[in-house]
Amino acid sequence: MRIEILTTGDELMSGLTRDGNFQWSGETLTWLGFDVAYHTTVGDDRLILKSVFNTAKNRADAVIVTGGLGPTPDDLTIEAAAEFFNVGLELSEPALEMMSERFRKIKREVSETNMKQVYLPEGCRVLLNKWGTAPGFSYEIEKTVFFFLPGVPKEFRAMMEEYVIPELKKRNPQMKKSCMRLVKTFGLPESEVAQKLEGIEREHVKLGYRAHFREIHLRVSTFGDSSSEAELLMKEFIEEICARLGSYVFTTEGEMLEEVVGSLLTHNNMTLSAAESCTGGLLSHRITNVPGSSSYFLQGVISYSNEAKSEILGVPMELIESHGAVSEPVVKAMAQGIRHLSGSDMGIGISGIAGPGGGTLEKPVGTVYIGLDSETKGTLSRKFQFHGTREEIKLVTVLKALDMIRQSFLNNV
Amino acid sequence: MRIEILTTGDELMSGLTRDGNFQWSGETLTWLGFDVAYHTTVGDDRLILKSVFNTAKNRADAVIVTGGLGPTPDDLTIEAAAEFFNVGLELSEPALEMMSERFRKIKREVSETNMKQVYLPEGCRVLLNKWGTAPGFSYEIEKTVFFFLPGVPKEFRAMMEEYVIPELKKRNPQMKKSCMRLVKTFGLPESEVAQKLEGIEREHVKLGYRAHFREIHLRVSTFGDSSSEAELLMKEFIEEICARLGSYVFTTEGEMLEEVVGSLLTHNNMTLSAAESCTGGLLSHRITNVPGSSSYFLQGVISYSNEAKSEILGVPMELIESHGAVSEPVVKAMAQGIRHLSGSDMGIGISGIAGPGGGTLEKPVGTVYIGLDSETKGTLSRKFQFHGTREEIKLVTVLKALDMIRQSFLNNV
Repeated sequence: MRIEILTTGDELMSGLTRDGNFQWSGETLTWLGFDVAYHTTVGDDRLILKSVFNTAKNRADAVIVTGGLGPTPDDLTIEAAAEFFNVGLELSEPALEMMSERFRKIKREVSETNMKQVYLPEGCRVLLNKWGTAPGFSYEIEKTVFFFLPGVPKEFRAMMEEYVIPELKKRNPQMKKSCMRLVKTFGLPESEVAQKLEGIEREHVKLGYRAHFREIHLRVSTFGDSSSEAELLMKEFIEEICARLGSYVFTTEGEMLEEVVGSLLTHNNMTLSAAESCTGGLLSHRITNVPGSSSYFLQGVISYSNEAKSEILGVPMELIESHGAVSEPVVKAMAQGIRHLSGSDMGIGISGIAGPGGGTLEKPVGTVYIGLDSETKGTLSRKFQFHGTREEIKLVTVLKALDMIRQSFLNNV
Repeated sequence: MRIEILTTGDELMSGLTRDGNFQWSGETLTWLGFDVAYHTTVGDDRLILKSVFNTAKNRADAVIVTGGLGPTPDDLTIEAAAEFFNVGLELSEPALEMMSERFRKIKREVSETNMKQVYLPEGCRVLLNKWGTAPGFSYEIEKTVFFFLPGVPKEFRAMMEEYVIPELKKRNPQMKKSCMRLVKTFGLPESEVAQKLEGIEREHVKLGYRAHFREIHLRVSTFGDSSSEAELLMKEFIEEICARLGSYVFTTEGEMLEEVVGSLLTHNNMTLSAAESCTGGLLSHRITNVPGSSSYFLQGVISYSNEAKSEILGVPMELIESHGAVSEPVVKAMAQGIRHLSGSDMGIGISGIAGPGGGTLEKPVGTVYIGLDSETKGTLSRKFQFHGTREEIKLVTVLKALDMIRQSFLNNV
């Protein structure tokens, strides 16, 4: 069964809105095992809509159309669909009832313009929208089934899950059960991850790579005659991935690096504080994005100036003067200083040159030192030479810092 | 002239890679005044590629194809194109020369697999790639011109600007000259921005809205017989926008809010420091994303705990105990404390409940106080009630904080 995804709207053609509905549905359907063969985007133009409905009908077995179901004059999808199917429009009582109910709750009247949304092509199957105002519908013509869904991402996704995916599965009774996971790695380039996983492919397993800045994510689907068969295959395959990639894998459940670090701190009943220079607060920001992080993250200091390093963190001025603010002794002293200041179990210190200015021959842009201090492991530090823009250097430094904390719990630092 | 953009690659269909090339080229071409009518995406399949080339030829005057020019077996675009145009492949000497030169520089040999990339359809016009290895090409069939470009975004964009856009302009001699600007506003919802701009539309001006989290961006193009005519019209139109929206407009040049704040601090020769609680470092991160920010941003403290607020910032414990850490007196004391500690001209203090936990009846999740302290204006504070996820509350708080600093220079706070 070939699927076409048809996203519509002038705001997509002009780049004002990112086509998140296509990316989400392409990913969801592909990794469930469907064949998403075509994707088309067009603007709000009735004739063009009709022509792409026709193209889709001739090459796909299922067409998912999103957008253009709203009340404004540039919402033309219902009209274009009815003309293409060569039927009239009729009032959908259940859709009107649901809309009236929705409007009653927010104490608004169903206006003339909104009424346009509940007149749907004759003979269609109405897909009630419990998440917004615009109802969807499906229509079968010759051997192709069309689904029309609203473009609002939250409503689109909910209706895909409620109506479209179950219907597509029903139409593919021979389709296998599937299981999906997202494995994330940090520390190896994509080519080396691929090299370590060479030959891992096997039947009923689908594996894809996604470079997410410096993280390499592995999207895995397994298929079986039953869910438990797919899950067992997944368990074995994930074990094989972990055996080959070792501690480069930081999650097999799709978590973010800061969530993994948060769990490690929580499970080990430890607290953390951070002294940042070149990352300017990004490390603390990432750590505090995790709900509940206030229970293990005590404090951050962004010591951009030498005075701040010395006065607040107690880094001796002589150390800064003799080694420079970007140096091993200084980040070690920063890590110790912030741990002492906050009374946390672990302290991290970062100093570097994010650029674009400030580099020297000896310490070019991208030179970064990270220091880690804890009672159990003492003080250690590492030097890095990164490349990229200011924002990229900030980001890769933060990933390295988070990973150093993680690895310290695995006794790898 | 109708344009179709055809992006190819399995990684796009499966959602592993975001289709940035379409968004960028759709936006660029639309706002230059071109009619981008169709966008298609398909995977790496020779037969499907040929079929969509055919569909595109029948409905578009210019087709821009991206992806599939690489050396691997799933790079099928050249082959499919030659078959579709019904011609053979021939070695392009200039393309080979450029590739050899490139490989010499990085001390690599041109391999058998790379050679595949320089055999192009007979009779095509070669588009040399100065930014990467894969050459592009264009080919005219009946009344449609096809451009084939590599999928690597940096190379795609450079070749669009070097070859495709000038060629499209040449083929549209009657096209007007254009001028493009990005105006950004903060503080009003999209509906209110639209209301204030009602009736502003005029001939030869194209205006589009983009909601960028809580900022509303206005994309403007003006057109004229000469560049100076387009620029004059732009100047007048931008003045009209600013007259209607006042200080909600924070840039007419596409800058980010933190860049505007940085310029204001620099021009007024003032320094800043920040004491953050619920935003966890995001404000400092955003401020320090701006190159050169170290000249005006002295220091940040992330005082997650009450002890940090009291010990480092000198917020009296009694104040925290009697009013709570999330309160007007505390953020005022935080702003004064960080200014005193760092010796900066301006200090900002933020305290709030980012959630999802920690809310109370009196101070629900999303309650945020921001304090601002400077010698010239004294200490002031504002209370906000935000809604959304933890990350959204952090982000909107930071935008409000940046905007409060900006407005203080306009004497609006």
